[in-house]
Amino acid sequence: MPGAVGADGQGRQGGTDNVRIPYPELAGTLADVLLRRGFECDRAVLCARLFAETTRDGVYSHGVNRFPRFMRMIGNGSIDIQGRPKLVMKAGALERWDGQRGPGNLNAYACMGRAIEIALADGMGCVALANTNHWMRGGSYGWQAVEAGAIGICWTNTMPNLPPWGGTVPRLGNNPLVIAVPRASGHIVLDMAMSQFSFGALASHRLRGEQLPVEGGFDSQGNLTRDPEAIEISQRPLPIGYWKGSGLSLVLDMMAAMLSGGAATHQIPADAEREAGVSQVFIAFGLSSFDDTGPIADSIIGTLRAAERESSGPIRYPGEQVLRTRAENMARGVPVDPTIWREVQAL
Amino acid sequence: MPGAVGADGQGRQGGTDNVRIPYPELAGTLADVLLRRGFECDRAVLCARLFAETTRDGVYSHGVNRFPRFMRMIGNGSIDIQGRPKLVMKAGALERWDGQRGPGNLNAYACMGRAIEIALADGMGCVALANTNHWMRGGSYGWQAVEAGAIGICWTNTMPNLPPWGGTVPRLGNNPLVIAVPRASGHIVLDMAMSQFSFGALASHRLRGEQLPVEGGFDSQGNLTRDPEAIEISQRPLPIGYWKGSGLSLVLDMMAAMLSGGAATHQIPADAEREAGVSQVFIAFGLSSFDDTGPIADSIIGTLRAAERESSGPIRYPGEQVLRTRAENMARGVPVDPTIWREVQAL
Repeated sequence: MPGAVGADGQGRQGGTDNVRIPYPELAGTLADVLLRRGFECDRAVLCARLFAETTRDGVYSHGVNRFPRFMRMIGNGSIDIQGRPKLVMKAGALERWDGQRGPGNLNAYACMGRAIEIALADGMGCVALANTNHWMRGGSYGWQAVEAGAIGICWTNTMPNLPPWGGTVPRLGNNPLVIAVPRASGHIVLDMAMSQFSFGALASHRLRGEQLPVEGGFDSQGNLTRDPEAIEISQRPLPIGYWKGSGLSLVLDMMAAMLSGGAATHQIPADAEREAGVSQVFIAFGLSSFDDTGPIADSIIGTLRAAERESSGPIRYPGEQVLRTRAENMARGVPVDPTIWREVQAL
Repeated sequence: MPGAVGADGQGRQGGTDNVRIPYPELAGTLADVLLRRGFECDRAVLCARLFAETTRDGVYSHGVNRFPRFMRMIGNGSIDIQGRPKLVMKAGALERWDGQRGPGNLNAYACMGRAIEIALADGMGCVALANTNHWMRGGSYGWQAVEAGAIGICWTNTMPNLPPWGGTVPRLGNNPLVIAVPRASGHIVLDMAMSQFSFGALASHRLRGEQLPVEGGFDSQGNLTRDPEAIEISQRPLPIGYWKGSGLSLVLDMMAAMLSGGAATHQIPADAEREAGVSQVFIAFGLSSFDDTGPIADSIIGTLRAAERESSGPIRYPGEQVLRTRAENMARGVPVDPTIWREVQAL
């Protein structure tokens, strides 16, 4: 982690026994599963692409590894494969949409697309989306914005999984926030939850027998600890910046629910297999009216790269590592856990 | 700090030897100084009010205590008392303004006012402001938005005062971020810098002979420490959430400079007496088209207040303590350090 201004933190695909699947085969296999499940063709292809790209980019926790659960949530009625976002209300550049419990990544992609469309026509746009589902990798919609030449900001609320500062039981969400800034020679995409470590990251450290690099939560006695298992037991992960991340999580939830008219964290089922009906916000800024933003971005990143370093590694910007991982996985195949791969192929 | 979801962190006005000045006398005295310095009448009154309200609300570090430096920065040419924001470019709901090196709090107040005006007419508005000066308490413009019934988001870049994660020398700013959500029975106003503790907070702890409640930075050997003096010496305060706050600081700087066309952190003089020409962003969302936001806000805050607690204190929301401090200081007089008060009266 040292060396990265914004490590993606979603964890690496561990183990040397991964199979490497060529990207087209990976995306095609997922699309086939979705088609057999009843998705319309264009939606199956896009949904599969978003899952496959997430794994291709190294965010293994929210890509193919999550696909079997996604299919189970279609089965248990949490996700309606026919659901698609519907405009509910419009106030200038601010729009409210109802996700109708559709697939979360398709809904999010449509709504960031709409925010970009407003922004390109009207400087900036905001779509607030109620009644949607887990968007999987939030960074996907940040990449979507920067690839369209826009600044993108989006966030989602989640089920309760983070105690408020001073509290002992999860009542806030970890509410991931994405901020993406376009730059011709490498986009900047920050994708961060409000907890210091996800439960997935805690489990990875425990399985590797490693302590966390910094304090990650409280143990059951209320002491700060680097022991991942103690935090899994206490269910008390730490918000980033202690009281600050707790406050930020709160206002992100408030804005998502109030702007969309949808559910707040405390109204979302605290069950990963039934976490449905979340609220999200998508904001885009069009930069086409401004001709000076490219040099400004390059100057800031250039200064960062030249900063004095703790160790020999470079100081990275958020999203930088993604491009390297993407290139490697496109060249060598995308690493997939063989157990997951067999499970996906049997779906 | 435990018990607060978002402690304001700007420190308390320590000591029992403070004088308590009635609010009207405080605001009036500051306005007189500004009038004598050549401010136009309405601008003197507003500038004085923003300073006085900041101290009244308990954010002592950015109120009257900062006023002598503000006057010195007029003297050294960093602040132009005649400078006022000028529209440079417009793309729908997104506008670029040039602050013309005017007083930072007057510029910020004008630009949040303009963002609110756009939002009330057009759902949302954004003003990006270049070439302005330190806005003093960022929360002021959050309160301004919620008192107009709007959600307000604003941030500023600053001079370099925070090393990037993995770096050893300040190259990022602590770039305070404000998010304010209106609620009839108590607005929520989050006002947080990207460093875990300000240098002002470090000094306060040192003077009281106290360690920080959590790790606040690195010592000169590169070890995390709770010793405030060690961090003052190393100049290595910690970003909130380590690599996460470092990434967030970076993208806030990028957006402020790119949207406004103004200076980035690395272009701002790293000297508190000459920190001029900063870039800021003001975003407002109008809620008047939506009739359901009040109950949603109350439901979220009600759930937070009912959360299981670590100790006997209540779980507070950001901004809650401000209202109590404000009421006390209006009733008893606003506490001011007598040395500062004599200095102000002699200006």
